[in-house]
Amino acid sequence: MAQEITASQKIELTFPDKSIRTFPEGTTGYEVAASISPRLAKDALSITLNQTVQDLSRPINHGGSIKINTWDTEDGKTTFWHSSAHLLAEAVEALYPGVKLGIGPAIEQGFYYDIDFGDTTISVEDLPAIEKKMLELARTKADFTRKEISKSDALAFYTDKNDPYKLELLNELEDGTISFYRQGNFTDLCRGPHIPNTEKVKAIKLLNVAGAYWRGKSDNKQLTRIYGISFPKQKMLDEFLHMLEEAKKRDHKKLGKELSIYMIDPMIGSGLPVWLPNGTVLRRTLEAFLRDEQVNRGYQEVITPHIANLRLYETSGHYPYYADSQYDPMQVDDERYMLKPMNCPHHHRIYAREMHSYRDLPIRLSEFGTVYRYEQSGELNGLSRVRGFTQDDAHIYCTHDQLKDEIKNCIDLTQHVFGVFDMPVDIRLSFRDDNDEKYGGEAEHWDRAQREIREVADELGLDYTIAEGEASFYGPKIDFIIRDAIGRKWQLGTVQLDYVMPERFDLTYMGADNKKHRPVIIHRAPFGSMERFTSILIEHFAGNFPLWLSPKQVAIIPVSDQFNEFAYRYKEQLHERGIRVQVDDRSEQIGLKIREAEKAKIPHMLIIGEREAENQTVSLRKHRKGTIGTFAFDEYLVKLTNEINRKTLPDSN
Amino acid sequence: MAQEITASQKIELTFPDKSIRTFPEGTTGYEVAASISPRLAKDALSITLNQTVQDLSRPINHGGSIKINTWDTEDGKTTFWHSSAHLLAEAVEALYPGVKLGIGPAIEQGFYYDIDFGDTTISVEDLPAIEKKMLELARTKADFTRKEISKSDALAFYTDKNDPYKLELLNELEDGTISFYRQGNFTDLCRGPHIPNTEKVKAIKLLNVAGAYWRGKSDNKQLTRIYGISFPKQKMLDEFLHMLEEAKKRDHKKLGKELSIYMIDPMIGSGLPVWLPNGTVLRRTLEAFLRDEQVNRGYQEVITPHIANLRLYETSGHYPYYADSQYDPMQVDDERYMLKPMNCPHHHRIYAREMHSYRDLPIRLSEFGTVYRYEQSGELNGLSRVRGFTQDDAHIYCTHDQLKDEIKNCIDLTQHVFGVFDMPVDIRLSFRDDNDEKYGGEAEHWDRAQREIREVADELGLDYTIAEGEASFYGPKIDFIIRDAIGRKWQLGTVQLDYVMPERFDLTYMGADNKKHRPVIIHRAPFGSMERFTSILIEHFAGNFPLWLSPKQVAIIPVSDQFNEFAYRYKEQLHERGIRVQVDDRSEQIGLKIREAEKAKIPHMLIIGEREAENQTVSLRKHRKGTIGTFAFDEYLVKLTNEINRKTLPDSN
Repeated sequence: MAQEITASQKIELTFPDKSIRTFPEGTTGYEVAASISPRLAKDALSITLNQTVQDLSRPINHGGSIKINTWDTEDGKTTFWHSSAHLLAEAVEALYPGVKLGIGPAIEQGFYYDIDFGDTTISVEDLPAIEKKMLELARTKADFTRKEISKSDALAFYTDKNDPYKLELLNELEDGTISFYRQGNFTDLCRGPHIPNTEKVKAIKLLNVAGAYWRGKSDNKQLTRIYGISFPKQKMLDEFLHMLEEAKKRDHKKLGKELSIYMIDPMIGSGLPVWLPNGTVLRRTLEAFLRDEQVNRGYQEVITPHIANLRLYETSGHYPYYADSQYDPMQVDDERYMLKPMNCPHHHRIYAREMHSYRDLPIRLSEFGTVYRYEQSGELNGLSRVRGFTQDDAHIYCTHDQLKDEIKNCIDLTQHVFGVFDMPVDIRLSFRDDNDEKYGGEAEHWDRAQREIREVADELGLDYTIAEGEASFYGPKIDFIIRDAIGRKWQLGTVQLDYVMPERFDLTYMGADNKKHRPVIIHRAPFGSMERFTSILIEHFAGNFPLWLSPKQVAIIPVSDQFNEFAYRYKEQLHERGIRVQVDDRSEQIGLKIREAEKAKIPHMLIIGEREAENQTVSLRKHRKGTIGTFAFDEYLVKLTNEINRKTLPDSN
Repeated sequence: MAQEITASQKIELTFPDKSIRTFPEGTTGYEVAASISPRLAKDALSITLNQTVQDLSRPINHGGSIKINTWDTEDGKTTFWHSSAHLLAEAVEALYPGVKLGIGPAIEQGFYYDIDFGDTTISVEDLPAIEKKMLELARTKADFTRKEISKSDALAFYTDKNDPYKLELLNELEDGTISFYRQGNFTDLCRGPHIPNTEKVKAIKLLNVAGAYWRGKSDNKQLTRIYGISFPKQKMLDEFLHMLEEAKKRDHKKLGKELSIYMIDPMIGSGLPVWLPNGTVLRRTLEAFLRDEQVNRGYQEVITPHIANLRLYETSGHYPYYADSQYDPMQVDDERYMLKPMNCPHHHRIYAREMHSYRDLPIRLSEFGTVYRYEQSGELNGLSRVRGFTQDDAHIYCTHDQLKDEIKNCIDLTQHVFGVFDMPVDIRLSFRDDNDEKYGGEAEHWDRAQREIREVADELGLDYTIAEGEASFYGPKIDFIIRDAIGRKWQLGTVQLDYVMPERFDLTYMGADNKKHRPVIIHRAPFGSMERFTSILIEHFAGNFPLWLSPKQVAIIPVSDQFNEFAYRYKEQLHERGIRVQVDDRSEQIGLKIREAEKAKIPHMLIIGEREAENQTVSLRKHRKGTIGTFAFDEYLVKLTNEINRKTLPDSN
């Protein structure tokens, strides 16, 4: 006998702030949003119900956790962009009848659709017309409607439409799981979800056209991939396009070359950056900065080799588990060695070298350790995606009682470091999903650690988000997402707890109880990789580095040859104080010399003429700011030293 | 008709000082020595005639270059030790009749003989008796006499003696090239040369017994190798044994472990040192010292990856030429990569990145570059013989006109660097052998370079030796041999000219004549390898590093717990000044704390008690020196800073 269900049955929904509210079964996401505020109902794009994103219009039949997704959430943006991909397909079908559609997902920034245009070739010149059509369709205020259909009906639809790609996809799906979405005159095989109505899409920019093999396989036909992005406000698109323009100007590959920061040389190898003299100064300065901070915080530096016996990585489990991203082992005598993919196991062996008492803990081992990981050649990108990179790595071995202080110490270091560059840091606490069994270590340790991480974050007054299910399998972690000068977000360093490696490497300390205990390990790296962080710094500062970091700090520019000797006397005095200084002693026009120093982005220019030589002064000019004024040389030295010691930012001095 | 030879025919001999003298044909080396001084005749051990060492007693029948070899020369010592090996064999034959003899050469320090003792096992306990017998035989004042014999006579001799090893060697020799040497009752198949008489050997020490496969092949029988050393004076042996004793105490493997400088971990790999925190401070301090010196001299630092495309090493010729000492190539996509065996080709590619004008030269690229070279596991030894090491490498690209200044700059840097450690430097100019055709590059460049190197050496007032035929195939070089605190010599850095790589990498600069020219490359590395130099430094200082270099500089030792807080206040102030300082706050006896700080070789100990806390003073104690006195804290800071900045040596303060 079927169970009787009353229309008045209630469901309980738990909101992100942990509050719980009761709704009638069958309430839609839209109604839930409206029950909170009309504003939220207006802004809502989709909901996330028990980790699954779904349409606002779908009735909710079971209780659980709920989030209302607006544009300000990742899930909201994804819904918005996925719906925009459908608009793109609709516009293309309208303009190019007979095209065959592949797939059209949302991506990190926008969306794309892979389309078979038949014999027609599409170029960027065709994009404005498609954009225009999309906007026109959006303004028709068409609802996105969902329809669940049988596999046979779906097959009939696409057989009728003669669309081989959708048919291929359909054939892989099971009956009972198939849904179509429709807006206006366009129907697409789609799991959803979608935004309620096309009118939400107020601004669209199609960005690029590229070839893409159907389903990424080079044996398949090459389709045309159109990339685009869309926004709920024109202003947002304007800002995005401005950001894109800025990003292009700041591109680290362009600036890295112009400023002689690094080179990639095919004869040396793809993805293997060579640090040129300017880049090396930059990197060494960053390293020295972080090293000093670490010494202040009780870290001890070590240096470990770039290869190791395979047994080391077998012990850690990195081999063969991650073999795909590792270089082939090399035979040495009767053993196999491998390029170091990570520094951790080396540090664990240093810890294991001697017996430790609880009194010796925490032990904080740091290393600027260069590791090598294989990346597909198509993925390589300047300094930001490479095959060899140097981690600002450290491992902290501590007792469970010390964990909270150590985490605080790590967060403090990370915030201090990025504060110096004026990069705001967003913090995400990545915890385990209690229902997932992949996580190693003991539950009580996890619970305590996650509780303590939250306590630390609260005590430090941090603004943070919690991401359940985002922990690594060996422990919870804290991710730092920094924002650069043009608003882009970059995930950099993490602070990562580890309950697994102490077991694997049999790491112990002798407790006050005279028994052996396992320490906890914290893995942490504020910059993450010197290479990637440098690429971000270049773009953040657009190459206009703060004085303390600038590969070249001061250019002395004599107005004519007769002041060269005098200029060299200044140079000598600056050099003695560790200033990176050069004299432009060429017999060129002063204007040209200044232009070239500006192009090289040298923060300070000292123009030296008759008056300066006579009065022992300098005429100071700053990069991008022009003439600052004339100073007695000694006075200038004080100014200069202050600016370096205080790590003054280029735009705040 | 045979040419008539008159007894009065003359030959011309050229001495090392380039003076030429005439002698009657058939004059012996001894007579030549005697013609210079009776003293020289007494001290002479052999002569080197036209690069070949020969007996003093052999008549000289052709003119050429001549050197009289005394104990103070390498050839003299080799002759002396080779003759001592014959004495060893004679003594063993006398004491153990029926033994079969293998080979008995001179080595770098002394000599050995490989002997088949049949069923008798020889241990170090047997050595004193053999030593005694050797001395007894030496005192018989037996002449070493040479006899050239036919192969058949030689075979008959050893067949009669039933010696399979000598017979095997004999069978490989051609008739007409065979000589026997005899002293006393002992005859040996031997090319020579030997000292004139056994009486020259006044002191002997047999050092060790080891197993050694006949001719180094593990399929052959294992013979007994007896190692020994001998001297022309007992005092020299005493000094040598004292030095050996000292070397044992200073052994970097022992001290490296005790002072936690480095570790070799089998799980990480043989010959792959891991720098522990103390070692890392030591190495970073050395690097910073050299880096500063290099910046002052116009070097630019770079950082290059630890692997490269095989094509790079094929271009340089390092692959496959040196494949035996290199790690196996790794397949990456469709290319092969190799662990970097040297930094040079990477730097050449950096030079080749852009067009250079003669005005940009010299360009001096430096790198603390870690390279990997395969060594047989039996050859590995602590930090001094490893499979991965970091070169303090640099390459200078200059015009021929700049060569002299650049060489001067390199020599000056090297001398300055070793001067800081109080290590005297011997200089050897390694030139080409004009008759050898292996040398690359143009003759006029070689001639000019060798002339200029000599000029520089003379202008700097250096004491140097010239070694003809010791140049590398791509250019002449300057070798620096340093002497450590116990008189041992170590060949460290070289300055090496290179005319070959500019061709191979097609390196050019645009001359003042608007034409392309090849630069010269200077390769140089004062320390050679950070690992090997550190091993030498540890032994040189016996672990008692100068304050500036010491991993731990100051230990603050409160006499009791109540002064701990005060001690930490001092610590804070020292730490702020970059001093590596620690507080021993344990509730232990002051005597124990001092003993442990002495054992850890911490240069300064500050004893803090009531008086010190009251008066803001420190009671300074220095490692190995004991109490120095009480100083106001500020006064102490000045003392400390001076000692660091002046790089004061531990025994001169």
